[in-house]
Amino acid sequence: MANKSVYFFGKGHVEGDKDMKDILGGKGANLAEMAGIGVPVPPGFTVSTEVCSNFAKLGNKIPFEVEEEILINMKKLEEVTQHKFGGEKNPLLVSVRSGAKFSMPGMMDTVLNLGLNDKTLEALAKKSKNRRFALDCYRRLIHMFGDVVLEIPKKKFEEILKKKKKENKIVHDFDLSEKHLEELISDYRSLVKKESGKEFPQDVIEQLLMSISAVFESWNNPRAVTYRRLNYIPDDLGTAVNIQQMVFGNIGKSSATGVGFTRNPATGEKELYGEYLFNSQGEDVVAGIRTPSPLNSLEKEMSASYTELEEITSRLEKHYRDVQDFEFTIQEDKLYMLQTRSGKRTGMAAVKIAVDMVKEGLVDKEEALLMVEPEALNQLLHPVFDSEEKIKHTVLAQGLAASPGAAAGQVVFSADEAVAWKKEGKKVILVREETSPDDIHGMSASQGILTATGGMTSHAAVVGRQMGKPSVVGCGEIKPKEEQKFFLAGKTKVKEGDWISIDGTLGEVLHGQIPTQPSEIIQVVRGEKKPEESKIYQDFTKLLFWADQTKKLKVRANTDTPEDARIALAFGAEGVGLARTEHMFFEKDRLPFIKEMILAETEEERRKALSKLLPFQKKDFYGLFREMRGHPVTIRTLDPPLHEFLPRREDLMVEIAELRASGSKQEGKIRELEKLLERVKALSEFNPMLGHRGCRLGISYPEIIEMQAEAIFEAVCQLAKERQKVFPEIMVPLVGTREELANQKRIIQRVAEKTMNKHKVKVEYSVGTMIEIPRAAITADEIALEAEFFSFGTNDLTQTIYGLSRDDGADFLAYYLAHGIWKNNPFETVDINGVGEIMKLAVEKGRKVKPDLKIGICGVHGGDPRSIFFCHKIGLNYVSCSAYQVPIARLAAAQIVVREKKERAS
Amino acid sequence: MANKSVYFFGKGHVEGDKDMKDILGGKGANLAEMAGIGVPVPPGFTVSTEVCSNFAKLGNKIPFEVEEEILINMKKLEEVTQHKFGGEKNPLLVSVRSGAKFSMPGMMDTVLNLGLNDKTLEALAKKSKNRRFALDCYRRLIHMFGDVVLEIPKKKFEEILKKKKKENKIVHDFDLSEKHLEELISDYRSLVKKESGKEFPQDVIEQLLMSISAVFESWNNPRAVTYRRLNYIPDDLGTAVNIQQMVFGNIGKSSATGVGFTRNPATGEKELYGEYLFNSQGEDVVAGIRTPSPLNSLEKEMSASYTELEEITSRLEKHYRDVQDFEFTIQEDKLYMLQTRSGKRTGMAAVKIAVDMVKEGLVDKEEALLMVEPEALNQLLHPVFDSEEKIKHTVLAQGLAASPGAAAGQVVFSADEAVAWKKEGKKVILVREETSPDDIHGMSASQGILTATGGMTSHAAVVGRQMGKPSVVGCGEIKPKEEQKFFLAGKTKVKEGDWISIDGTLGEVLHGQIPTQPSEIIQVVRGEKKPEESKIYQDFTKLLFWADQTKKLKVRANTDTPEDARIALAFGAEGVGLARTEHMFFEKDRLPFIKEMILAETEEERRKALSKLLPFQKKDFYGLFREMRGHPVTIRTLDPPLHEFLPRREDLMVEIAELRASGSKQEGKIRELEKLLERVKALSEFNPMLGHRGCRLGISYPEIIEMQAEAIFEAVCQLAKERQKVFPEIMVPLVGTREELANQKRIIQRVAEKTMNKHKVKVEYSVGTMIEIPRAAITADEIALEAEFFSFGTNDLTQTIYGLSRDDGADFLAYYLAHGIWKNNPFETVDINGVGEIMKLAVEKGRKVKPDLKIGICGVHGGDPRSIFFCHKIGLNYVSCSAYQVPIARLAAAQIVVREKKERAS
Repeated sequence: MANKSVYFFGKGHVEGDKDMKDILGGKGANLAEMAGIGVPVPPGFTVSTEVCSNFAKLGNKIPFEVEEEILINMKKLEEVTQHKFGGEKNPLLVSVRSGAKFSMPGMMDTVLNLGLNDKTLEALAKKSKNRRFALDCYRRLIHMFGDVVLEIPKKKFEEILKKKKKENKIVHDFDLSEKHLEELISDYRSLVKKESGKEFPQDVIEQLLMSISAVFESWNNPRAVTYRRLNYIPDDLGTAVNIQQMVFGNIGKSSATGVGFTRNPATGEKELYGEYLFNSQGEDVVAGIRTPSPLNSLEKEMSASYTELEEITSRLEKHYRDVQDFEFTIQEDKLYMLQTRSGKRTGMAAVKIAVDMVKEGLVDKEEALLMVEPEALNQLLHPVFDSEEKIKHTVLAQGLAASPGAAAGQVVFSADEAVAWKKEGKKVILVREETSPDDIHGMSASQGILTATGGMTSHAAVVGRQMGKPSVVGCGEIKPKEEQKFFLAGKTKVKEGDWISIDGTLGEVLHGQIPTQPSEIIQVVRGEKKPEESKIYQDFTKLLFWADQTKKLKVRANTDTPEDARIALAFGAEGVGLARTEHMFFEKDRLPFIKEMILAETEEERRKALSKLLPFQKKDFYGLFREMRGHPVTIRTLDPPLHEFLPRREDLMVEIAELRASGSKQEGKIRELEKLLERVKALSEFNPMLGHRGCRLGISYPEIIEMQAEAIFEAVCQLAKERQKVFPEIMVPLVGTREELANQKRIIQRVAEKTMNKHKVKVEYSVGTMIEIPRAAITADEIALEAEFFSFGTNDLTQTIYGLSRDDGADFLAYYLAHGIWKNNPFETVDINGVGEIMKLAVEKGRKVKPDLKIGICGVHGGDPRSIFFCHKIGLNYVSCSAYQVPIARLAAAQIVVREKKERAS
Repeated sequence: MANKSVYFFGKGHVEGDKDMKDILGGKGANLAEMAGIGVPVPPGFTVSTEVCSNFAKLGNKIPFEVEEEILINMKKLEEVTQHKFGGEKNPLLVSVRSGAKFSMPGMMDTVLNLGLNDKTLEALAKKSKNRRFALDCYRRLIHMFGDVVLEIPKKKFEEILKKKKKENKIVHDFDLSEKHLEELISDYRSLVKKESGKEFPQDVIEQLLMSISAVFESWNNPRAVTYRRLNYIPDDLGTAVNIQQMVFGNIGKSSATGVGFTRNPATGEKELYGEYLFNSQGEDVVAGIRTPSPLNSLEKEMSASYTELEEITSRLEKHYRDVQDFEFTIQEDKLYMLQTRSGKRTGMAAVKIAVDMVKEGLVDKEEALLMVEPEALNQLLHPVFDSEEKIKHTVLAQGLAASPGAAAGQVVFSADEAVAWKKEGKKVILVREETSPDDIHGMSASQGILTATGGMTSHAAVVGRQMGKPSVVGCGEIKPKEEQKFFLAGKTKVKEGDWISIDGTLGEVLHGQIPTQPSEIIQVVRGEKKPEESKIYQDFTKLLFWADQTKKLKVRANTDTPEDARIALAFGAEGVGLARTEHMFFEKDRLPFIKEMILAETEEERRKALSKLLPFQKKDFYGLFREMRGHPVTIRTLDPPLHEFLPRREDLMVEIAELRASGSKQEGKIRELEKLLERVKALSEFNPMLGHRGCRLGISYPEIIEMQAEAIFEAVCQLAKERQKVFPEIMVPLVGTREELANQKRIIQRVAEKTMNKHKVKVEYSVGTMIEIPRAAITADEIALEAEFFSFGTNDLTQTIYGLSRDDGADFLAYYLAHGIWKNNPFETVDINGVGEIMKLAVEKGRKVKPDLKIGICGVHGGDPRSIFFCHKIGLNYVSCSAYQVPIARLAAAQIVVREKKERAS
């Protein structure tokens, strides 16, 4: 069936499996898989993701043929379940749920209890012998349908409910009486009529099709679009829609609904971990409206179901070879699984789980490497609170430790405020009663998240972990008054703008701003803690050791100081890919000499100033080389335009104007400032990024490069005499033509020979170039004739290929990303079609001339996993990133090897 | 003979011909050719250009094998001439002259009379029965050898000569007696000894080889290097060296030497044109030391030789199918040709000659098209003096009309001053006794050139014509005192910095600054003169008509105003390739509204300001469309960053600081300025070139593009209703991704449909994009899916591909060009290996998707002939350049077609 759009699952009749995520979405594929391996799953069917884009193309209409297929499958579902949709005896109720290829928790819409109308309500009441339950389902349906399908603000339903509960002094929904529920239903229906102009539909087929349409539409709601942007999910994947027989956790005390993980998603501990609520429907747990009970307490309450749950979830973990995040419902003591998927976890948990599952024989090392998102390793390096400082601060409240790490910030009470305050450079903690998908942008802008309600699998907890933001949730001890912009913690009133600190590892909320200290792994790396005292360090090291055995790319670090080099080496760096000599110039003790050099009017004066800088530079290089113990160290010659070392033009102009206008008598000072201004003006540029910098400086002022080369080789010779290994690579920036590199290379080689001859020392070295402007890439075959290595400077390469300054683009770049003009920020991840295409060309052209040419990358992209995958694919020799990104790069470099192997095998 | 390095010519033994310029140089190839077709040429041989680079590689040494070949050829020369080199009876004297593939007049060195020493001097005296002549030759040899080979400043020789003449009250060199000459020889030899530490060499072979070496070395002297840079001559061509038997124009009254053209190089008139000097050697004429007699006067003086000269040069013109620039010597009534080559001419002469030669049946139309350098057409458009203004000014002096055109400027007396003054933005006229190749940079910086001595073929005249600089030479009525920085013209003293005007068409020097008026062609184009009254206009039009019949590229103009469009059309433009809408915004009556628009705080305010701009823009477009009568008109939407329309940040800062510091009470004004400054600061960018501009603006502020589109289509509809043809092409700038173009295209199409529907009018239009950032070129296949045309913006493309701002690069670019790091200025001529490679890629990718995609270019390169050749080769549909460059582009576009045809034929 070429045009099949709907796939059935249930009771011996399963049309899909877990590998069909592209067309069934994650949820649909896993429901089919579970049904296929005999896990108790309510039967149903999935409308494929392909329908989603056709739906949009038709102006948000379900194609006619698909509608027919849906109705045919409803018939089948009626047969399998022996219930009738809209039936007045044995009514079939269904849920309609979204489910894209990649999980987008809470981003899209769900409608439960479809199939209820005034007639089937009574049938359900009769059949269940529980009119209260039937009414509860009906009021939920109208609420959800009103919100999701009819787009009536859900707040209006909630207000009615709140009022009803308040009037009757009821705390929990399950304490609502039949009468209350009937009144609620009536009020809800009036609301629906008033807001939508129509009655709540009594035709169940109409209910169904409208709900399916609403789910497809929700693919393009703003929060789903934002989520995809943040998570690099393509817009054209589309969502599938799952229609499934309802099972009820809200029939009474022998019913429950819950969610859980096969291992602790925060720590990685092997334990059944999650929450459940008696007498409720699934959304209640996830939404964080009631604080649920921990899953292990279910063992006492419903021991048979708990044992079955343990057995099934353990089977699922083995079957899927990964931690599972599952949803279940117990309907009158009968267990149903509603969902299973790979469980999101913290970086720390990911590392522990990967290493543990290898030990347990569940996965092999290569699989383990794929189980950790490279960027998640960042979380293991996050700072924690300084313990001595922490005891000085009051613990305001205790909540659930939902996402580990330490964060301090000023309190804000809305997502928009969080974004606005962050823009002003402030650090904020977002405090909410509960978070919802509308808060994503604010969570992203915050240091950490604190909520009063919700459990370990609530929205705040899931998203917090995913973003690596320290989060404390379900903190009932605080009472947020979001409108009045304060919260109470016991008797303490914490207002907007006050500082608090939250410990996501322990679930603590503290008053004030607590300084942080390095994480356990950082402490080990710095030698402040012994490796054998840190479990997580051992797991971390083991995983990265497997990565090193697998990866082909070498990983280097961009560091300018011996201190940084030491960290980089401890993190497994195999060299320095970029040492920026100008960073050394900005230090206080050198800046006067740099200025002297720039203001020099003759070459002689300039040389004099340079000779004062020489000993500093030599010391810098000596330290760096010694620390790197013979690993290659790439030193880039002076790069920024000279005016960067001088005061800003407008500041000088204002200072002079003020002195003059105030009738100052300091003629001498004014004249001096004017002289400086003259030089600053002469050096100032309209577009410094495209100006007199890089090798252009070295060509105009060869004496600068001579000094730098002399400093490098003086350091090299000293180390050689001390019998230390050293391998310098000297890198010329901003080369656009072969002649430029040839010019600089001649100078460097001349000084190298002279210096080494003077010291009677012979050390190998090489001279290469940055490939950071398009012309260098395009003429890489010519440039390779001079270059002994290439290093892609993808920052400048991206700026020039896009014609876009990183310093200026921020304004409209945000707009572009938000509006989908650009899918990704090219300054974060290599733009494969544009910049990548040129990189590929440069590699090909360079290697055509020199087949063994060493090629690396030293732009920010060197620490970005997706860019690292690309670098591997085009055959680079190494990536270079910040010291702290070295572990990420090592893991990413290994993952791409495993993936390629898998691709070849399939 | 694979390694043949030396080629003989003379008396039935000729090894080369005119097509061997690559290895024999221009002079050598033409000497061989003339010898081959029986023109009387003194025999000799040529050392090939290939030796030049080997010579340099060996550290300025003639390779041993080549030295041997030279000596073998000297033997042959002795046989052919029946003279002996260094012979004490019948001594052979030779000249050694440089000669590269492309003529570099006066750039390299020459030595005459080699073979003279104390012994051969006497032999020559005896044989010629003219001791004075022999002594004259010997003193010239020592002088030239001392200067060229031994690098003794020639001034020192000249001072000795001057002193000698002054002591003896002698005006002309030929009045020096034998005794004077003997004394001079003795003084020169003492000078040589003193300066070089060695005696003048008596060994004639040593003289010869040293001279050959000196000529090879002169290839790399600074002025030759500069000349090559200015004339785009590659450094690696090398020069050949010609060794030729001496013939003597200085034996007495029946001897002479001269130079000439077969047609007038300034006007193109068909007449034997040139100068000669009795009793002198060649360099005397060219150097401009004595003012020579016009060539036609030779007819009276030496009628037989003159007739022979007429016959030979007319034969040469036919043979070479081009105007010839020749040198000759008459030795005791016997005519020898020493050189012939294609004659350099003014633009006006080139056009006339090309058209005339077709009429005369000497060349066909295609050859004629190649006879005019496209850029030389510029000269025909140069302004001339306003005739009514001119009569108000005193004619200070009359000289030779060496290079036509009118120029006014402040007097300077040295090349360095000329350069320095020009840098300060001043216009200068360089006034010199005579110019030399050392003055090239100063001539290039001047508006015009005035010299006191020298004829129509003197250095100043030749270079002036070539550079298209109005020049008056041989103006004996002025007496420059270069050291004291003034010149006398009769009794008038003109000092440095005074204004003069020179008329290079009439040879007049006038006091003061005379306003100029348009040239004859411009007057016709503007309708101020009738075509039938202008011969040059008719020739010009005829040549360009032939060009249009030949060329494949269409030629458009970049114009923003109806006035410019009219000129462009008159010059043959086939459309407008670029109308910059922002130029319209900068006009005084619109700037307030633009500012209002930019300072608007809400979209509503912004729309209000835009609505005020709409009528202006509509009027602009209406005028432009109407003027272009249905030719395509490409309108680019707003391009520059908004801050360009506001005051500069630093100016505002200074103004505020001054107001504050002076204790001003104008608080209101200060606050207003501060508000403005705030907006300016918010908009200001580190690198505006890479900032928020082009389509990025149109995406952030769609209302701007809407207004522009509305203005365009309102104008279109009005014209359509008036039954006027109109074809708008709307071009989106700075596109880097397909989505950007799609976004802007949607807006434009929506407004277009709406406006045309409103007016019930249907007009065809297209929407395309600039290809001006590398990413657009690299992803041209994606972008072509949206674009209906491409237009290369090679200015920005060059800036981004080089990572080099045109506004900032000037500083080091000059250094780069002077030091040969870059061969050409990529902002003048397309960088074929870098930018060109990317253009080619974009054309290929674009046409892969849309085979008929219209592609043009609208950067400055669209008016550069070599870039136009390239555009033709990669298959562009059109080039667009300034209105005044349209004729250049038409001719260049035709030339490349003729050249390709020739290449295919050969």
